[in-house]
Amino acid sequence: MRIAVDAMGTDLAPTTEVEGAIGALRQLGPDLEILLIGDRDQIEAEIGRHEDVPHDRLSIVHASERVSASDSPSAVLRKKPDSSIVVGLKLHGSGEADAFLSAGSTGAVMAGSLFILKRLEGVDRPTVGTTIPTASGPLLMLDAGTNVDCKPQHLVQFAHLGKIYAQDLMKSENPRIGLLSVGSEPEKGDETTLATHALLRDEPSLNFIGNVEGRDVITGGFEVLVCDGFVGNVLLKFYEAAAGFLMGTVGRALKEQQARVDLSDLMKTFDWAEYGGAPLLGVNGVSIICHGHSPPAAIQNGIREAYNAVRSDLIAHMRRELAATTQPSEETT
Amino acid sequence: MRIAVDAMGTDLAPTTEVEGAIGALRQLGPDLEILLIGDRDQIEAEIGRHEDVPHDRLSIVHASERVSASDSPSAVLRKKPDSSIVVGLKLHGSGEADAFLSAGSTGAVMAGSLFILKRLEGVDRPTVGTTIPTASGPLLMLDAGTNVDCKPQHLVQFAHLGKIYAQDLMKSENPRIGLLSVGSEPEKGDETTLATHALLRDEPSLNFIGNVEGRDVITGGFEVLVCDGFVGNVLLKFYEAAAGFLMGTVGRALKEQQARVDLSDLMKTFDWAEYGGAPLLGVNGVSIICHGHSPPAAIQNGIREAYNAVRSDLIAHMRRELAATTQPSEETT
Repeated sequence: MRIAVDAMGTDLAPTTEVEGAIGALRQLGPDLEILLIGDRDQIEAEIGRHEDVPHDRLSIVHASERVSASDSPSAVLRKKPDSSIVVGLKLHGSGEADAFLSAGSTGAVMAGSLFILKRLEGVDRPTVGTTIPTASGPLLMLDAGTNVDCKPQHLVQFAHLGKIYAQDLMKSENPRIGLLSVGSEPEKGDETTLATHALLRDEPSLNFIGNVEGRDVITGGFEVLVCDGFVGNVLLKFYEAAAGFLMGTVGRALKEQQARVDLSDLMKTFDWAEYGGAPLLGVNGVSIICHGHSPPAAIQNGIREAYNAVRSDLIAHMRRELAATTQPSEETT
Repeated sequence: MRIAVDAMGTDLAPTTEVEGAIGALRQLGPDLEILLIGDRDQIEAEIGRHEDVPHDRLSIVHASERVSASDSPSAVLRKKPDSSIVVGLKLHGSGEADAFLSAGSTGAVMAGSLFILKRLEGVDRPTVGTTIPTASGPLLMLDAGTNVDCKPQHLVQFAHLGKIYAQDLMKSENPRIGLLSVGSEPEKGDETTLATHALLRDEPSLNFIGNVEGRDVITGGFEVLVCDGFVGNVLLKFYEAAAGFLMGTVGRALKEQQARVDLSDLMKTFDWAEYGGAPLLGVNGVSIICHGHSPPAAIQNGIREAYNAVRSDLIAHMRRELAATTQPSEETT
């Protein structure tokens, strides 16, 4: 299996990517090969700093351009055809790589994935999912910010995509799916949520547990949270900041009082790097997006996620799920 | 000044309300009188348990009915005309009381306030605001769940109402107003947020600081957060649960390791009872809504909030602000 890794995406590229890739090669099966995409000289120099590199499973594909935050995502394909994102996605699209991972511009990865990998049939809008920590384990939230104005059928498609992701990558046989709303009763919610609730309830292949509220996102007890990208993004950024703020405040209080307490297990629960990358679901391929400020551990975990997605045949399962759904997509209506 | 307090609203009514009211009478100025509305016998029995009660400033207005969670809010006026909520609001509407507070059904208080107190001119939809803790102090978020589908002009009206509330009750001379979105740039957001941004930017009387993100709700540095009631409600319930979960987890870790650490200051920051009630803004009166599971301290703080609102002439200031705005309301268009 070959995974194409954009080596030019993080704030500390390619240092972070090279370290993450070498970590993944050591951690994962001997069937894994990694292609690092980006500036060959810089990547080679970084590799040179490491010892015991599995060179036979690590290669470099040169890409002369780099996408920056100021590049218009939709113009990247045309204006930066030799960027690490475009080159990496094309390797995946042509079958020379089985998956792609990038910590670069989310918009450019999305646009490139859509154009190069194409959408899966039955999906109107691919969605970025994010795994968030809850009191009862990880929860896949989708959408996490890509689609801020959603129609009910888009949210239903997210539910199907999330179900398959949870089955294949979260080892949940019959994933419970909750719809984010302002009350647990079916009649609580805004117009879109009310209409979505009715569609999800009528979808026999989904284990729909009904509406969930903000507090349930903390309690957990279900595997997939469906919401539009506006509220998803607000919640995600809020959660990251709240966890950091609370833990920081506790840490200072402990220090001031010279208390010796080990909170490392707790910190780990809220360490977002543990959760790897955010999968772009609904395209015809495995495309994983990492934070621009990812540490090497997050890149390594993102590669592991891509590896597991390929091994479990995630995309074929999604294709099968979508073919069996009763809801029409925009294409077919 | 007379404040009408629904004594039958909390889960432990009227015990909680009586204790909160007596606390408020002791804490606040000698000009404060409180009317406790509800079952006379039960309230008298509760008052009998307290010593040194300022009887000259505490009276009971009997109301034979009590609104329950299963009552339809819009039918309460008609079906339970002698309920503590309706009786209390009518006392305020007629001028016999200067403000009203209830920890009963939010929907019934809203519906009753709208019908009895009426909307302020220029307000299409009254809004419930909630004060939430941030790293730099309290922040008024509106809407907190009342209006789940909002049009841009509704959000602009919330901004005006929030501005005056922050001036009068948060002692902020020139309150900074942020619009909740998925990015700080004006072009980031869903359709409603984009349109609202443009309206707020053109409103010279508002100190609009632009879009704020989920993480900014933690960082703070502004006084008023404008959002629709769907995302506001999700955020609020999430925040309450997240703070409880994080603090609980920290507490257990400390206990397991037998560490003696005083986190009471921190706990106080996230103790929602500190923040009293949620004001219903946009009606022609002071109407404060408390949680059904409020402790006496929250009722006391809610009464203090009502007291300060009356003293600062909040409603007159709101009327003046709305008269000077440039945006038409639905009534006038």
